[in-house]
This record gives sequence, structure tokens and C-alpha cells, in this order.
Amino acid sequence: MTAGVGAAPELDIARWFNSAPLLLAALRGRVVAIGAFQMLCPGCVANGLPQLQRIYELFPKEAVAVIGLHSVFEHHAAMTPVSLEPFLHEYRIAFPVAVDRHDDPAGMPVTMARYGLRGTPSLLLIDRQGRLRMHRFGHVPDLAVGAAIQQLLDEGEGAIPPVGQKGEVCAVGGDCG
Amino acid sequence: MTAGVGAAPELDIARWFNSAPLLLAALRGRVVAIGAFQMLCPGCVANGLPQLQRIYELFPKEAVAVIGLHSVFEHHAAMTPVSLEPFLHEYRIAFPVAVDRHDDPAGMPVTMARYGLRGTPSLLLIDRQGRLRMHRFGHVPDLAVGAAIQQLLDEGEGAIPPVGQKGEVCAVGGDCG
Amino acid sequence: MTAGVGAAPELDIARWFNSAPLLLAALRGRVVAIGAFQMLCPGCVANGLPQLQRIYELFPKEAVAVIGLHSVFEHHAAMTPVSLEPFLHEYRIAFPVAVDRHDDPAGMPVTMARYGLRGTPSLLLIDRQGRLRMHRFGHVPDLAVGAAIQQLLDEGEGAIPPVGQKGEVCAVGGDCG
Amino acid sequence: MTAGVGAAPELDIARWFNSAPLLLAALRGRVVAIGAFQMLCPGCVANGLPQLQRIYELFPKEAVAVIGLHSVFEHHAAMTPVSLEPFLHEYRIAFPVAVDRHDDPAGMPVTMARYGLRGTPSLLLIDRQGRLRMHRFGHVPDLAVGAAIQQLLDEGEGAIPPVGQKGEVCAVGGDCG
Repeated sequence: MTAGVGAAPELDIARWFNSAPLLLAALRGRVVAIGAFQMLCPGCVANGLPQLQRIYELFPKEAVAVIGLHSVFEHHAAMTPVSLEPFLHEYRIAFPVAVDRHDDPAGMPVTMARYGLRGTPSLLLIDRQGRLRMHRFGHVPDLAVGAAIQQLLDEGEGAIPPVGQKGEVCAVGGDCG
Repeated sequence: MTAGVGAAPELDIARWFNSAPLLLAALRGRVVAIGAFQMLCPGCVANGLPQLQRIYELFPKEAVAVIGLHSVFEHHAAMTPVSLEPFLHEYRIAFPVAVDRHDDPAGMPVTMARYGLRGTPSLLLIDRQGRLRMHRFGHVPDLAVGAAIQQLLDEGEGAIPPVGQKGEVCAVGGDCG
Repeated sequence: MTAGVGAAPELDIARWFNSAPLLLAALRGRVVAIGAFQMLCPGCVANGLPQLQRIYELFPKEAVAVIGLHSVFEHHAAMTPVSLEPFLHEYRIAFPVAVDRHDDPAGMPVTMARYGLRGTPSLLLIDRQGRLRMHRFGHVPDLAVGAAIQQLLDEGEGAIPPVGQKGEVCAVGGDCG
Repeated sequence: MTAGVGAAPELDIARWFNSAPLLLAALRGRVVAIGAFQMLCPGCVANGLPQLQRIYELFPKEAVAVIGLHSVFEHHAAMTPVSLEPFLHEYRIAFPVAVDRHDDPAGMPVTMARYGLRGTPSLLLIDRQGRLRMHRFGHVPDLAVGAAIQQLLDEGEGAIPPVGQKGEVCAVGGDCG
């Protein structure tokens, strides 16, 4: 029971790549991993985005939703959707990517402000009841991210298939077949 | 409930480094991560041992026990404890390391045979009830290992402190303080 | 003697960053390393540009000139100078970067065509007499690049200070002081 | 002309792997790259030995001789030839490796003392006239090593085939065919 932790703020998105529009409200029952990035942020290119791709490949889609959130707060003219689209293509990013909407074209985008993000890369984890449960700025090691996602999967009722009697815990991930 | 999965075979150890002797039977209540290695195995040096060190640093000691199992099945004269000791020193390996005992000085050691290990590196995960739950040969990505360990921590009764109302799932790891 | 090898084609540049305009004709006496890249080319970001930066830092500026050549042949709207400028800033690229000029805004740029480049990253080495001496597409190991540049430095008359009697050949590089 | 730089000290070797015994005196005309290492030195395993292997693969054997020098000055009982042999096998080291001879079984070996090595890894470069020209302790970047070796190849008379009129300087390395 985690009474007092409210629902995570909804996304406010100008445009989606690799997906029809998604709402957090419609992803209840799944853990949601949101990785905020900017296409010209070296730490995002080197670490944040590859980690999101690994999360996307390891966990079943019905258990974990992965969203890249393009939250541009600097160099606005250089990171428009016109530039983002070939970036996603060249870096072979397959998971859904959302362009954070701007009220102020020269300022911080709306979703970034709602979550109080300090910069990019940032990682947000939302539990199956829609509550924000982790918010990290900078690099988080894979071992900790894997543990955190699994902890959220293990909470509450059995939407996630139990491991059962096979005795192999890695059944949560496609890699451990 | 996983009736039918018996207790993991006990370790049979000739010598311990970085620890007093340990028995799996005495580690009930903790998840145990055993990494079988050989000091002259390049994949162990590059991947397996650093991963064990990361597990050892991330999870609380009272939740997860890490054991390096030196299971020498080739080049026996080259990988004696006399060589292993400075190896552990030079590579700054801080977690407990167990030298797998040989009945046959030129053959496969006892614990390795009990577990049916195919080679090194191998990763074994034992749950809090003492049952073998994962057995993998070769490199397993950190994301999958983190998820697997956490899944075992989340099973059963509350020996592991619950995350509670803080809303930060990363409380399992020192890195996410 | 390399009679028959003509002068390397001159650069045709729309705009320079990190430098006043440069002409190959004015760089005679120096070895010139030209790295063709596109800012959205993953291999350029991961390998090509860091290698150019290492060349720039190792060799004395009066011996080796380094030029990044931004030769956009795809995704033209995504890789304009407006995008390139913050890219260079974020990736801390300190050496001169030249934007290859387009006659056809949707086609291959002029300098790229003159040199017959097959794509990015490509590495060109021009000797102290202004002749093209190496042209490689894709990743070239540092060891080979270091040897190739030094071979061109060692040719001909003594514009490059000899190592002399110190007995330390690494005098060509700041790293080997 | 580098009058005053004497011949490099001769090697004093207890045993060779991957080669019949070699003498520096017999390698005149070639550049010799000697990498001092210990099999339990992490920096040697991670950086020094792979770099020697790259040198061995890039430069023609008739131009550059590569020698790994196993200079054990600590943990003597752990790094005997009995251990070294499977180490070389497991790490797929193909170039000649020389075991530095000990007068004092517990002290610094003879060749190491002759050269005044400070530790491992160390890189020594000997020119085609047999003179020590570079002596570096710790990691030296590939770019600098490639340049240094090539500079020694380019000195003096033409034992090394000239590049000629092909216009491709990478002819020194097999990788640049």
C-alpha cells in the first residue's frame, strides 16, 4: 500500500514516432519506463537511448511499455521533428518516441515541466497503478534499472504471468528463454 | 508455490577467500548469486567477475549473498590457490570466493559436477528458500540479472524491507540512494 | 618520388566552424587529415569524430592540420548548419569543421563528389606537397592512422622538426612528452 | 644522426613461447616493439597485450618484431611459466613471448633491471640500428604508438619497401590493403 502517492502527470505530446498516440491512463496494468532525451545530448546517445532499447527488447511488451520522451529545452531550432525523424532512423530506435509539446517555443516543454526534470537523460518509472515510482537524472546502471522494473512488476495482482514451477526466473525476459 | 523444485546442491569447497566458510544452508532468507569462473578464462575476467562485483555493490548484503566459485576444470596446475590469491588482489575482488574442491585432481571439481555446469562463466541464482532458480552459461546482460534477482527478492514473506511510501523503487540498491 | 600523383582537389566550403576559411593550397608543408562525416551518422559519432579529435590533440598543429568535412548526402533538412552548430558544441569538437557546399540541395555535395567519397565516415590524408595519399571509407584503426600520418610527415625536406639526439621518438606527439 | 645513443641492452631470457629464442642483436634492420607485462596485471590484460597483438597484426613481420616480455617482479609463485603457458593460450596471444630471467627468484628479473622498467605494462621501441628510442610506462594511445613505430621505420636506408607511386601510405599495414 502506498497511499499518498498520486497518479503520475499525464504526457502532453506534440507528435509520436513508432507508435500511435499513447496515454499513461491507458497503460494501467503495465510498468512504464519513460526515458527523457535530446537528440544532441551525448549522454543520451551513448547511454540513455541504448538502455531504453535494451529494456524494450528484454521485457515483454504486455508487461513493460517503453517511451522515449524528446524534451527539448535548449538548441530548439536544431532538434525539431524534422531532425528527430532521421535520427531515430539512423540509430535504429524501435520503441515509441514522443515529442514533448512546447507552450513556449524557446523554453522548457510541458511534460518536462510537469515532472520537474532536471535535464537529459532522465529515467522515470511508473507502476502498474499509474504512480511515479522512480525519477533519476543521469546514468543509472542496468542492474539497478532491471531490479527496479522487476520490483514494480512484482507488486499487486497477477497481471504479469507468474514464473510458476519451471524454476527459471528469467522468464520475464526474452533473452533468458 | 514451486513444489517439486528441491534444494540446490550444497557447495563443496576446499578453501575460501574474503570470507569465513559459507554454507548455502546457512544463507536461507537471502538470494544467493553464485558466479562460477576460472582465473584464466577471458570471458570471466572481462564480464563475469565485474558483473558479480556490481551485484555485490548494488544489493544490500542482508538481501543478496554473492559467491565467486573457482571451478577449475582445465589447466589445473596453472590455477591453484597460490595463483588465485594474487589474482583476486590485483583485480580488487572483494566478495567471497570459494575454491571448488577436487576429488580427481585432473578432472571436474565436485560442486561444478553437482550443478552440471557446462563451463565458465556460469551464473546460478538460488532463492530465499534455497532452491536453484536460474542457471545460465555465458554472458547474461545486467538488465536481466537485475530483474531476476529482484524477482527472487520479491517472493514470499517480508525478510526484505518493503519500499513503503517513499515512492522510490531503487531503495533495493545502494546506487539509487 | 611520386610523379604522376596530382594535387588533391580543393575544398568547396559553404561555411566554417572553429576556424577562418582554409584552403588546401595554403596548407602546403603540413599533412592534412580530412574526416568526412554527417552529424546523424552513428559510426561518425562513435568512431570517426573522436578519432579526428585524437589526431588533433596528438600531433603539433604546425605539422598536421585536421578538418572535419560535413558532407551531407541524405536527410538534408535534418543536418543544416543550424543543427550542426549545437552538435559541435555538445560534442566538444574543437578542430575546424567545414560544411561541404551543395550545387544540388538534394544531392551529393561538391567536395564529396570531387573526391568520389563513398559515404561517411571517410578519412583522407593529404601529404605536405598537397597530394591525396590515403582515402579510406569506414573505420580505420588508430594504429594504422598514426603510422600513415607519420609516414607522410617523414617524407621530403625537414619542415617537421627532427627528433634529434634525445632518443625519444614520441616527440611528434604532445602525449609523449 | 643520433650519436651517443648506445645499443639497447640485450634480453636475458629463461624461456620462449611462440618462437625460437631471439636476440636483439639478430633483429637489426627491424624495429622491435617490446611490451613488458605480468599475466596478473589488469592493465596489461586490458590494454598492453591487446595493443601488442594489434601491432603484430598491422605491421609486416619483416619490418617490425613484437616481443612480449614477461617480467615478474611480484607474486612470483603465481606467475610461473606453468601458469603463463595456458594464459597465452586462453588469450590467443600469437606473438613471441619471452620469460625474463631471474638471478634473485624473489626480486626483479634481469632484463627489467637492465632497462630500468618502473612496472608493467611498459612499452619499449628499439630502432633498426638496435638503439632504445622509446620507453613508456603505462598506457600509450595507439595513435602515438603507430606514429612512433612508423618514424623508426622511416629512418635510415631503405630496408623497408618504399610506398612508391601508388599514393596509398597505408601500405605499411596489412589492414590498409
